[in-house]
Amino acid sequence: MEINVQQCCEILREMDDIVILCHRNPDGDTLGAGFALHYILAQLGKRSRVECHDVIPPMFSYLLLDYKPEEFEPKNIVAVDIADEKLFGSNLEKYCGKVDLCIDHHGSNKHYAKNWLVRENAAAACEVIEDICYGFEEVELSKIIADCIYTGVSTDTGCFRYSNTTGHTHAVAGRMFKAGCDFVKINRLNFEVKSFSRIAIEREALNTLELHYDGRCALVYITDEMLKRTGAAESELEGIAAMPREVEGVEVGLTLRWRDNGYKVSVRSGEEVDASAICGKLGGGGHRCAAGCYIESDLESAKETILKVVGELIEKEDAR
Amino acid sequence: MEINVQQCCEILREMDDIVILCHRNPDGDTLGAGFALHYILAQLGKRSRVECHDVIPPMFSYLLLDYKPEEFEPKNIVAVDIADEKLFGSNLEKYCGKVDLCIDHHGSNKHYAKNWLVRENAAAACEVIEDICYGFEEVELSKIIADCIYTGVSTDTGCFRYSNTTGHTHAVAGRMFKAGCDFVKINRLNFEVKSFSRIAIEREALNTLELHYDGRCALVYITDEMLKRTGAAESELEGIAAMPREVEGVEVGLTLRWRDNGYKVSVRSGEEVDASAICGKLGGGGHRCAAGCYIESDLESAKETILKVVGELIEKEDAR
Repeated sequence: MEINVQQCCEILREMDDIVILCHRNPDGDTLGAGFALHYILAQLGKRSRVECHDVIPPMFSYLLLDYKPEEFEPKNIVAVDIADEKLFGSNLEKYCGKVDLCIDHHGSNKHYAKNWLVRENAAAACEVIEDICYGFEEVELSKIIADCIYTGVSTDTGCFRYSNTTGHTHAVAGRMFKAGCDFVKINRLNFEVKSFSRIAIEREALNTLELHYDGRCALVYITDEMLKRTGAAESELEGIAAMPREVEGVEVGLTLRWRDNGYKVSVRSGEEVDASAICGKLGGGGHRCAAGCYIESDLESAKETILKVVGELIEKEDAR
Repeated sequence: MEINVQQCCEILREMDDIVILCHRNPDGDTLGAGFALHYILAQLGKRSRVECHDVIPPMFSYLLLDYKPEEFEPKNIVAVDIADEKLFGSNLEKYCGKVDLCIDHHGSNKHYAKNWLVRENAAAACEVIEDICYGFEEVELSKIIADCIYTGVSTDTGCFRYSNTTGHTHAVAGRMFKAGCDFVKINRLNFEVKSFSRIAIEREALNTLELHYDGRCALVYITDEMLKRTGAAESELEGIAAMPREVEGVEVGLTLRWRDNGYKVSVRSGEEVDASAICGKLGGGGHRCAAGCYIESDLESAKETILKVVGELIEKEDAR
């Protein structure tokens, strides 16, 4: 059943010995929402613990400062920021079909829980958690809760830069300041600090930067040898695809990454060119500004193939 | 005389044919404040124009969309975001001693104007401009004014990451969303887009990255040859000094940059180590987390000199 914030608070008040589920490959929003909810429940005198398929990345350890997980036989299950049971991961499969409450912000939410509070226009699940916190008169929005909620809204909006950011997102962030959240540290950890191997692979990718079509298209590539040389893990490549589009004047950014017997191509574009149209021609797909495809060939042919499609699209745009 | 917002609005209401001054090497806050004020004055039926010692960087052209500078003999002079007449630049020297009103947020403001409205706890001059806008009942906070004000608060806080950001800064940003500001485009222009030569010099600097003292200190350098090879201008080096501190685990980031007969050293540190203490030992200075000094020597000796001082400081910290 779809519920509102007040009903959600009433349902939580009836619960105890609660397992809070975060999605696999956890990010700042699912963890921020999960731990914020834990601290809220703790103030209500309830036992809860956060569970996730994956180990929580060490950079998020500041969310766990006041966290003492307890052993208990769960009576209730709550999922946060999880649109689909598929995102539980195999370690949490046992909870499929058993979720009492889901708190989320994805329009694609599958309504797999008994009750769900899903706010589609929220940039982060943590925006919803804030309202739940205010829904309990006796709960104080403490510093650690503020750190959790700020982490969710900041990371899910790329530090207030993505188009999902709203005036409400800023209002939430502003209220977390009043509760003393440590935004400088949180943003440094989430947006500035990089592992040495991540910097090494960025450097290698930058060294391959080529401009095409009068500087309107930029291309970088990452070969198998580069991955081996730098020791960069798959998880450290996130965001690399945004690099070529950072060059002034570039409308289409291409990132080719070796995988199996060919190259995975990530395409990023501005308003002018449709990235999903480019990838569609090569059997891939995605969104207007971010799409991908796979080309089974060596580097030189993969470059040639994708550049040819990009060139045709740019010509078409110009002809309009 | 020090004035409040209401007095400031009354003074502006009495003015006409107004020259608005921005500081030299103009940034998003001085330009955002200057053009926002121009659009406010235009709604009041007053003639004004924005003047700056330097040419306005093309990336800020979106601030000028509704701007039609007019020719007139100025009757009044208003300075925005300018703490000191020294920051006028030689082209605006003629206005020294003639400023009627200064709107600013620098605690160091020299009170050189006849009247000044200086809010020290504001992260940006644009936060003050917002209040001035509300001070005129008949002025509407239009989209272009919102774009100007958002530009100021976002750029002066590094997109809400610097420690000067407050809950009020977020509240201002949130209100600009309601007025339809184009935050995605503004942040892309200010925080993502880089010239090809900037990317080239970043790449060259990254290629020199060295770790010292068990990875607690990172060093990059930029030689004369690198500047010549990439064609990077002085103005394109801004922010490069932040790069070495982005490496995970690094407490002290060092950037050596060739100048004249030696190297300008930029030191960036976290809470653990005092950057100004490091630079102080070599005749420089600055703040706790960001400081600089100059070492007149070749690259190898400059590196040796600064690394020795850093090593001593790190040892001292550990002994505590």
